[in-house]
Amino acid sequence: MSNDPGKPMSKTTIYDVKVMFGDCDPAGIVFFPNFSKWMDASSLDFFVQCGILPWRELRKTTGIIGTPLLEIHTKFMRPATYGDLIHVHTSVETWNAKTFVQKHIVKKGDEILCEGRETRAFCIHPEGGRLQAIPVPDFIKDKCC
Amino acid sequence: MSNDPGKPMSKTTIYDVKVMFGDCDPAGIVFFPNFSKWMDASSLDFFVQCGILPWRELRKTTGIIGTPLLEIHTKFMRPATYGDLIHVHTSVETWNAKTFVQKHIVKKGDEILCEGRETRAFCIHPEGGRLQAIPVPDFIKDKCC
Amino acid sequence: MSNDPGKPMSKTTIYDVKVMFGDCDPAGIVFFPNFSKWMDASSLDFFVQCGILPWRELRKTTGIIGTPLLEIHTKFMRPATYGDLIHVHTSVETWNAKTFVQKHIVKKGDEILCEGRETRAFCIHPEGGRLQAIPVPDFIKDKCC
Amino acid sequence: MSNDPGKPMSKTTIYDVKVMFGDCDPAGIVFFPNFSKWMDASSLDFFVQCGILPWRELRKTTGIIGTPLLEIHTKFMRPATYGDLIHVHTSVETWNAKTFVQKHIVKKGDEILCEGRETRAFCIHPEGGRLQAIPVPDFIKDKCC
Repeated sequence: MSNDPGKPMSKTTIYDVKVMFGDCDPAGIVFFPNFSKWMDASSLDFFVQCGILPWRELRKTTGIIGTPLLEIHTKFMRPATYGDLIHVHTSVETWNAKTFVQKHIVKKGDEILCEGRETRAFCIHPEGGRLQAIPVPDFIKDKCC
Repeated sequence: MSNDPGKPMSKTTIYDVKVMFGDCDPAGIVFFPNFSKWMDASSLDFFVQCGILPWRELRKTTGIIGTPLLEIHTKFMRPATYGDLIHVHTSVETWNAKTFVQKHIVKKGDEILCEGRETRAFCIHPEGGRLQAIPVPDFIKDKCC
Repeated sequence: MSNDPGKPMSKTTIYDVKVMFGDCDPAGIVFFPNFSKWMDASSLDFFVQCGILPWRELRKTTGIIGTPLLEIHTKFMRPATYGDLIHVHTSVETWNAKTFVQKHIVKKGDEILCEGRETRAFCIHPEGGRLQAIPVPDFIKDKCC
Repeated sequence: MSNDPGKPMSKTTIYDVKVMFGDCDPAGIVFFPNFSKWMDASSLDFFVQCGILPWRELRKTTGIIGTPLLEIHTKFMRPATYGDLIHVHTSVETWNAKTFVQKHIVKKGDEILCEGRETRAFCIHPEGGRLQAIPVPDFIKDKCC
């Protein structure tokens, strides 16, 4: 059931973040775009944990420059504050022809703080041209599952 | 047709941003969570332009502490880089009983860079209690339309 | 020799940071104000590791609201990039009557990336008044040494 | 008296910043590293206002990749908060053989909020080599004075 929403089509990795004072806003809680920053860091960390080379290396052999974002969708349930240790649980929910959806569940202990989905595409950047999405390479899918 | 998606139920305001070097990432383009930061700034600016007092003033007479975010949904079409002058066009798309949806269209000249929707609620913070969403006050709706 | 510059007048703590993609700029290296953010986080972490309560607790019994910054001075020797694990070594270099100087050495492995000094003051915020620096409390100095 | 400290050796430019909610910390005031970000933006803006091409253009004809930071030194006098409009007054205080010192005075109305000095060097990045500081080019000094 490859399209069963919510069912991961991949391994799940965990990325830890210690919330800093400077991550918080005048309400004393995490300024929400920081959750997007941490999901982005966990997205990259997911591929590294699955054994994919960092983009700056991968580019040399495959031309792939990374996985630019097409869309994000995040629900915020509970706030966090400085000193909190939080965990981003990341997996791939769907592999499409030229895009994929990564799901991030951000937890503090057993509580879910927020949940986000990012739609991304593997891209190459041809000399003199524009960024171009390519089909998700099989060797990458294989390493992630 | 109050629920016709996309049709603004309010004035539209414009918030200008000059992209800084430090807003950009190793790909040389705006790091995407900054678009969320700018939409958030434009959300607050919208209410100020409509004649609502800043939260720190409004709180004294109404108890309202602001409009915490429940959900964001953003589509990214084109990148921007440092030196670019961009404009966030902000309106309220839907007024619900206890929430509202703000729509932000980010443009550079005539080009749309990204488009986002934020679901927010007006909240009060009772002494010793937790944040609590309240029905959108009529005097606020009136000023925004 | 309490004023021998560079000689710590306190314990030394270490604060770890994993550099994220979003911490880096178009040159592919850490955008320098992030080093200030991390020194600030390490400054607070220093007091917590020394057994001082977080500011939001300390305020209740002592009125102290934190240690606002008066001055920073940082030298940058080497860059870092995303994926790097770096360590902020923090100590108090000088205790003055109403201020103190915290020193932060940021390392990657054995390499020093940058070195910064922050001048701070313990402050209280009297009802209806302005922030006010107070002499560094003895019980705090005692715990830090 | 080229080394008279404080006397500008150049034009003075002004860079405006509208403080956003997300620029502020749990104390409700600007999180201090943002002042460094704005001085950095004003540093680049200074050269653009003086008629120097943006780094990404300048690189093509001169090899210059920008003006990396060697040192910053900032004094904080007064805080600012969201909604404030502030102005960064920027000039070159000293031209040295291979470095220069830029001075930034950040004002809100007539009040000085903070004052910072940045030591920078014009750098090239030879193919396969490391960043390398070069003497400040005369055509740049000429345009800035």
